[in-house]
Amino acid sequence: MMAEHSLWRFSRALHRAINERQSDDLETYIDEDVDWVIYGPIELFPFLGARHGKAAVLEVCRQISENVRVHRFDRESLMLGEDTAASMMRYSLTALDSNKPINLRLAHFARFKAGRLLNIRVLLDSHELVAQALGGPMHR
Amino acid sequence: MMAEHSLWRFSRALHRAINERQSDDLETYIDEDVDWVIYGPIELFPFLGARHGKAAVLEVCRQISENVRVHRFDRESLMLGEDTAASMMRYSLTALDSNKPINLRLAHFARFKAGRLLNIRVLLDSHELVAQALGGPMHR
Repeated sequence: MMAEHSLWRFSRALHRAINERQSDDLETYIDEDVDWVIYGPIELFPFLGARHGKAAVLEVCRQISENVRVHRFDRESLMLGEDTAASMMRYSLTALDSNKPINLRLAHFARFKAGRLLNIRVLLDSHELVAQALGGPMHR
Repeated sequence: MMAEHSLWRFSRALHRAINERQSDDLETYIDEDVDWVIYGPIELFPFLGARHGKAAVLEVCRQISENVRVHRFDRESLMLGEDTAASMMRYSLTALDSNKPINLRLAHFARFKAGRLLNIRVLLDSHELVAQALGGPMHR
């Protein structure tokens, strides 16, 4: 039997951590030395940016869970290697403070070690995020 | 001898088309039925968005070449499959109309057929693009 790719376990654990605030699974699938970056306007969204180590990543996932709820996501493109994965995804979120819907595309490149996330780089369609979450550059 | 991956030929041809406005090579490496999307704020940058077919893609590359010059790019993440490629890249550009420097991260997922580009999806750090090219949402 082929083992399930680490991406699927990590993805389920991450979405469970965000939507149900249950981070036990997520903790299992993150390496102690994880290197994590979500590129984007950190000055507007403090849960973006770089984090190092499992504790910092679990903490930022907790912050994300306090800010958004995931309604659905579609994986539009996917590449899997032995210990690597990249995908482009379309998310439907709700911003919890304003109850606003946010539709957002992102791309990620991830590397796993012994089934645990070691490195991830995420790029957001940040103009869309700013426009929807904050009302848009034209309307402030 | 292993054949060179289609990504490298396409990448050289694209950069040559943008910087030297020589699109002969690029024309060779694009499939007639190419499906091309650069996600981003189309209302601000008309050379973003979807294009179908070789003629439309060559035309949008010509428009891009009239808007920016590429100074350098770093490929920060890369995944290669037999006929597929995904990467995250950091570009240093100049906007030709204003002579402004633009530093921009993007991710792309590409599929090739017989060595020619058949499908590409590009995601830009569009907040960064808007901020640098137009002076930023705070300063308009």
